[in-house]
Amino acid sequence: MDALGPTVLVVNSGSSSLKYELFSMEPRRSLLEGEIEGIGGSDDDYTTAMERVFDALAEAGVLGDSCELTAIGHRVVHGGDAFADPVLIDDETVERIRRLALFAPLHIGANLAGISAARAVCPGIPHVAVFDTAFHRTLPEYAREYALPRALAREHGIRRYGFHGTSHEYVARQAALLLGKPIEELNLITLHLGNGASVTAIRGGQSVDTSMGMTPLEGLVMGTRCGDVDPAVPLLIRELTDLSREDVHRVLNNESGLKGLCGERDMREVHKLVDAGDPDAALALEMFCYRAKKYIGAYCAVLGSVDAVVFTAGIGENDPDVRARVCEGLEMFGIAVDPQRNTAPASGPRPISPDGAPTAVLVIPTDEEAEIARLTYDCLTEE
Amino acid sequence: MDALGPTVLVVNSGSSSLKYELFSMEPRRSLLEGEIEGIGGSDDDYTTAMERVFDALAEAGVLGDSCELTAIGHRVVHGGDAFADPVLIDDETVERIRRLALFAPLHIGANLAGISAARAVCPGIPHVAVFDTAFHRTLPEYAREYALPRALAREHGIRRYGFHGTSHEYVARQAALLLGKPIEELNLITLHLGNGASVTAIRGGQSVDTSMGMTPLEGLVMGTRCGDVDPAVPLLIRELTDLSREDVHRVLNNESGLKGLCGERDMREVHKLVDAGDPDAALALEMFCYRAKKYIGAYCAVLGSVDAVVFTAGIGENDPDVRARVCEGLEMFGIAVDPQRNTAPASGPRPISPDGAPTAVLVIPTDEEAEIARLTYDCLTEE
Repeated sequence: MDALGPTVLVVNSGSSSLKYELFSMEPRRSLLEGEIEGIGGSDDDYTTAMERVFDALAEAGVLGDSCELTAIGHRVVHGGDAFADPVLIDDETVERIRRLALFAPLHIGANLAGISAARAVCPGIPHVAVFDTAFHRTLPEYAREYALPRALAREHGIRRYGFHGTSHEYVARQAALLLGKPIEELNLITLHLGNGASVTAIRGGQSVDTSMGMTPLEGLVMGTRCGDVDPAVPLLIRELTDLSREDVHRVLNNESGLKGLCGERDMREVHKLVDAGDPDAALALEMFCYRAKKYIGAYCAVLGSVDAVVFTAGIGENDPDVRARVCEGLEMFGIAVDPQRNTAPASGPRPISPDGAPTAVLVIPTDEEAEIARLTYDCLTEE
Repeated sequence: MDALGPTVLVVNSGSSSLKYELFSMEPRRSLLEGEIEGIGGSDDDYTTAMERVFDALAEAGVLGDSCELTAIGHRVVHGGDAFADPVLIDDETVERIRRLALFAPLHIGANLAGISAARAVCPGIPHVAVFDTAFHRTLPEYAREYALPRALAREHGIRRYGFHGTSHEYVARQAALLLGKPIEELNLITLHLGNGASVTAIRGGQSVDTSMGMTPLEGLVMGTRCGDVDPAVPLLIRELTDLSREDVHRVLNNESGLKGLCGERDMREVHKLVDAGDPDAALALEMFCYRAKKYIGAYCAVLGSVDAVVFTAGIGENDPDVRARVCEGLEMFGIAVDPQRNTAPASGPRPISPDGAPTAVLVIPTDEEAEIARLTYDCLTEE
């Protein structure tokens, strides 16, 4: 076992599943990953799930005993105003995370249940929380604030936090490697297009604007989330229907987006419907791409010049049709996709723009777990 | 009186005032304009106000008797799905407009009270309703729809309608005249920056996207309206505070925007605070301009190429500092402001971009009343 050197287990604890990945850190490589599904939601369920994770590690022979881990890194969806960096978890940290539950009740609850279970099963090692909002700590005030009454916004922390931070940060670093330039010298627009989806404007390695807001509901059209909508609409829906506040929240988060438009939340299924001539699916696909295109334009205006547009996550990495539609008509920004490169079967980081294009278009597979492992390990060595 | 030829009286009936302007139509020129203030809100108030309008016309000697008018054109804020064009008003029209009250209760109520008073005072002539949403009837479906459940959106008419339509259409036509090209060959971005504010992308004279949505709350930062915000925020404010639904509506519409950020709703007052070193006012100014800049970028992406960016309305026509800030850093789009032209005292339609710039930047005074008079008169001759 010693040959592994330092190891970090990354835990992503969701409302119905717990994903994990084990890394050895010098140099970083993935040893094992897996997912425990069908979690019911009680704390006992998460403890059982964590025990099964360690059984799996033992069974695979990568760890003889749980305490040989160097650290466990936990993904936490929201850091609010309290956390701008990865942080060692103690009881006080847990309490401060708990106070953020209102921002994302389901997610934060699941994250904390996972943390609690992991600390119980593995009390002797450092646990680190890595926040999905942390990369966006550099948003300038004018991009971060909403035009709401200042006292109200300050008192309740109502502002843009942004999400998918570890993914945007990871692919930005990979883009710099691929372009062969220091990230400090690059202006990038990163599109994380998965079931959740967000766009970030990155100047010199720092997030300067992002499409998700106080919650992960704002911005792009997503699998089941509406993204941008007139702020009068959530209130008007309550007046127009007999839906409760909780119902409206559920409609906007779980029954809108692609699913609301055409019945399918998965872009692969949407494509099948489009191919079969379904007009609602065609509209859903068009709206998804149109909204992303508008954000690229907006962030070009924010950045002034753009070195690369980066596609990542499930749709971004695997859907050449979406990539082509999003970039169509953006020649004025120096953005174009080479059809052959775009559709060629490939899985690694790669350019899909023509040689010599003013703005590179890149596909870069994301790896949030690797980034969480890196941030966790950095957090230990910085202490 | 005969020398005047056909005449159109334009009435803009608001919740506390009634504005009017009389035009002779061949050729169109303004004869008289005025405003009756301090309207209390009862139907009697509007009837009294209309009688005062005709007293003023008689006193000025422009009309001997109210019935010498050719027509009265009424501004109506929301046409919903029912009205895509100006329409002759009869009892059925009034009923159909009344059904749209939920979209904009205060505005529609005032508009209808003005129409009712004018029809009572002046029953013998045609009355025409001109809708603020009508110019946006050409929005393509993917720009018009929100990513909400289709059945819900269809049943309740939840979609983007857009506003300030007569203003965007008027300045687009004036821009074409100034550029000396047919409007059918031009791509324009028009910024109506007043107490309310919106941006429209116009392709070949047709609105293809606009920043206001189902209501006038979406989009830019405004005098007292928040503009774009995470759609979870209106619901979260109710959870975080003891505000009622009506309270939240009032906060977002009447206590946000510039006023919410720095206490002043009027951009001229915001500038004074900025000059005095007020950091909240500096943020408000920066957010106002930053949000407008992002929409220009987004609509450049929508249009693919842009012939002119047009500034209009109170702030757009009179605030060179805002115009310069909005256009700053947009050189990649071919958009730039010539500092001397931008700050030179002037009041007519004029370019403020350098000679030979790829995209012209224009200042064009808006004239919604003249446009309503034109649309009203066209409506009569088309019948």
